Amino acid sequence: MPQEFRNRLRGLQRRLAQSGAGAIVVSHLPNVYYLSGFTGSSGALVVEQRSATLFTDGRYSVQAREQLRSSGVKPRITQSQPLEAAGSFLRGLKHGTKRRTAVLDPNHITLAGRGVLNRAAGVRVRWISSPGWVEEMRAIKSPTEIALIRAAARLISKVFEEIVKIIRPGVMELDLAAEVDYRMRKLGASGPSFETIIASGRRSALPHAQPTTKRLRQNELVVLDMGAILGHYCSDLTRTIYLGCAPRRVKQWHKAVLEAQKAAQEVLAGPHEAGEPDDAARRVLDSFGLGRYFVHSTGHGLGLEIHEEPRLAKGRKQLLMPGMVVTVEPGVYVEGVGGIRIEDDVAIHACRIEVLTTAPRELLEL
Amino acid sequence: MPQEFRNRLRGLQRRLAQSGAGAIVVSHLPNVYYLSGFTGSSGALVVEQRSATLFTDGRYSVQAREQLRSSGVKPRITQSQPLEAAGSFLRGLKHGTKRRTAVLDPNHITLAGRGVLNRAAGVRVRWISSPGWVEEMRAIKSPTEIALIRAAARLISKVFEEIVKIIRPGVMELDLAAEVDYRMRKLGASGPSFETIIASGRRSALPHAQPTTKRLRQNELVVLDMGAILGHYCSDLTRTIYLGCAPRRVKQWHKAVLEAQKAAQEVLAGPHEAGEPDDAARRVLDSFGLGRYFVHSTGHGLGLEIHEEPRLAKGRKQLLMPGMVVTVEPGVYVEGVGGIRIEDDVAIHACRIEVLTTAPRELLEL
Repeated sequence: MPQEFRNRLRGLQRRLAQSGAGAIVVSHLPNVYYLSGFTGSSGALVVEQRSATLFTDGRYSVQAREQLRSSGVKPRITQSQPLEAAGSFLRGLKHGTKRRTAVLDPNHITLAGRGVLNRAAGVRVRWISSPGWVEEMRAIKSPTEIALIRAAARLISKVFEEIVKIIRPGVMELDLAAEVDYRMRKLGASGPSFETIIASGRRSALPHAQPTTKRLRQNELVVLDMGAILGHYCSDLTRTIYLGCAPRRVKQWHKAVLEAQKAAQEVLAGPHEAGEPDDAARRVLDSFGLGRYFVHSTGHGLGLEIHEEPRLAKGRKQLLMPGMVVTVEPGVYVEGVGGIRIEDDVAIHACRIEVLTTAPRELLEL
Repeated sequence: MPQEFRNRLRGLQRRLAQSGAGAIVVSHLPNVYYLSGFTGSSGALVVEQRSATLFTDGRYSVQAREQLRSSGVKPRITQSQPLEAAGSFLRGLKHGTKRRTAVLDPNHITLAGRGVLNRAAGVRVRWISSPGWVEEMRAIKSPTEIALIRAAARLISKVFEEIVKIIRPGVMELDLAAEVDYRMRKLGASGPSFETIIASGRRSALPHAQPTTKRLRQNELVVLDMGAILGHYCSDLTRTIYLGCAPRRVKQWHKAVLEAQKAAQEVLAGPHEAGEPDDAARRVLDSFGLGRYFVHSTGHGLGLEIHEEPRLAKGRKQLLMPGMVVTVEPGVYVEGVGGIRIEDDVAIHACRIEVLTTAPRELLEL
């Protein structure tokens, strides 16, 4: 990883040089980690064309020194808030006119943060608002990053296979979620990549249900949506099971969702736009008469964050490229009855895709 | 709780009426929950003087309808992003000149978000940037809220007492963290309120250490910092134990930190500024010659979020008031050797304080 951090920094510095600006302020913490290796909960990174400095507080003085060794970023401990320290630092730089221009990301700086930067940096620093420089880099994963996501995907697949053994009527949704989280940590994850979803019966029709004290019952659908963070990278897996013998209608829904998923995956490799897998999934569900029950988009990039670029959603023009890792997760949700979702993590390679999650996809009837 | 949501909305609407503005846009999700009861991961709330509307996406159509019943907020499902929908809604309002003014919180709206609002709402809506309206309300907890935090604090205290039984040399930090999280969920928590910290040996000198594969060893300090979310409210507890018979130096550090905590607690009730408990804790640590090892502030408010107002930090002028709930958590961190922190959650009542966390505070030698 050390060389990775340096490569990333260098990539950002090249873009900075092309733009002619003297510095970029990076404040979104996953971006700070991506470029520097620092994992603290408070920090701002100033990247200049030939160096980089991280501002953080006294809680992280030892940690910052240790973690930044691999990236070569200089740590600076500050009493003021990191953004203010970053602004003051820029004020002090002896740059030529053009180099006094600094870039900020409008998606990650609040109006208040902008005020702090302005006051601290003073009038001589000219700000350019330019979104997504680091996110664009992050969207294309290196082989090392794909290996980390693969490991996180296999880990969560293993958790699912373990959890299937204890799913039965009478178990509480919350207890099942606790078992999922416990098992992923025992397998080495640092934690769940989002709040584990266990949604049973009619609650399975809520795509983002939080687990409750409801107990599973015979003849119910159960949606399990879980992800693990391993080595800082996220995985995301959904399976739907049926407690008992599934009625024909449920089997038909499951078949439709599985076919929709396959159709979406078929248009991931090759020069496709990010909207096309979504179109493909919707076409299949429409052909089953279920299109109107698919109430969210087909997938999202994943990596250091659980939701990142690209989004596989209607009308997205972004080109899908080798190195991207996305979820493919169509679903149908019938209010008052139940829902089905099947989700896998997929890496896009030059001429093929690789499904990273390995848990069985057929409808389990327990 | 239903009446609480309505009271809160009414409180905000009163402030809105006093300001003369027609609406306020609330986008920070804990604030959205506080006012409406909605727990989805995407939403924007527009509060007008006599009504309130929540904009969210199709994933939450059923959930929004159910959760908003208690607050009386109207749900609106939108295909566009919630902030854009909120802006368009404001554009359509037939208000008098003054009422076409809308308030936004500069701490929670990004530069990009501001652009979205501007474009969607058009030129006829005039924006006022005014921070912290909802946070100010949230800083003063109702008896119902204090009861929820009390329950979360007792729960995490119980987890600590259970976990003490399995702490011994050879156990891995990560495994201990997994056990903490598992136990809190089995006791009813929806999850940890932050990433559980288990920091042993020299790593205990890192105030915000993340648990690693390091195993605990004999004759080491172990800092355990953990919190649970129960009924949406957070708790936060730190204890430090010693594996073996603590050397005199460690006992002295522990005594100093405990006295610093007591001194800080003594200036919580009554008309004090939020900086005073921090001063009191620092004075005690200085008297032990340990002041320079206390590298963070003394505490923070807690409630729906793990860090909220007020901050017990140097120079803070905010007045401490009945209804506030704060952590009190002095510590000493000696690089290369180890650290000690003791943290409790404290509710401020009219004439007294109430320590909500119940785990024993003396130095445990295991």
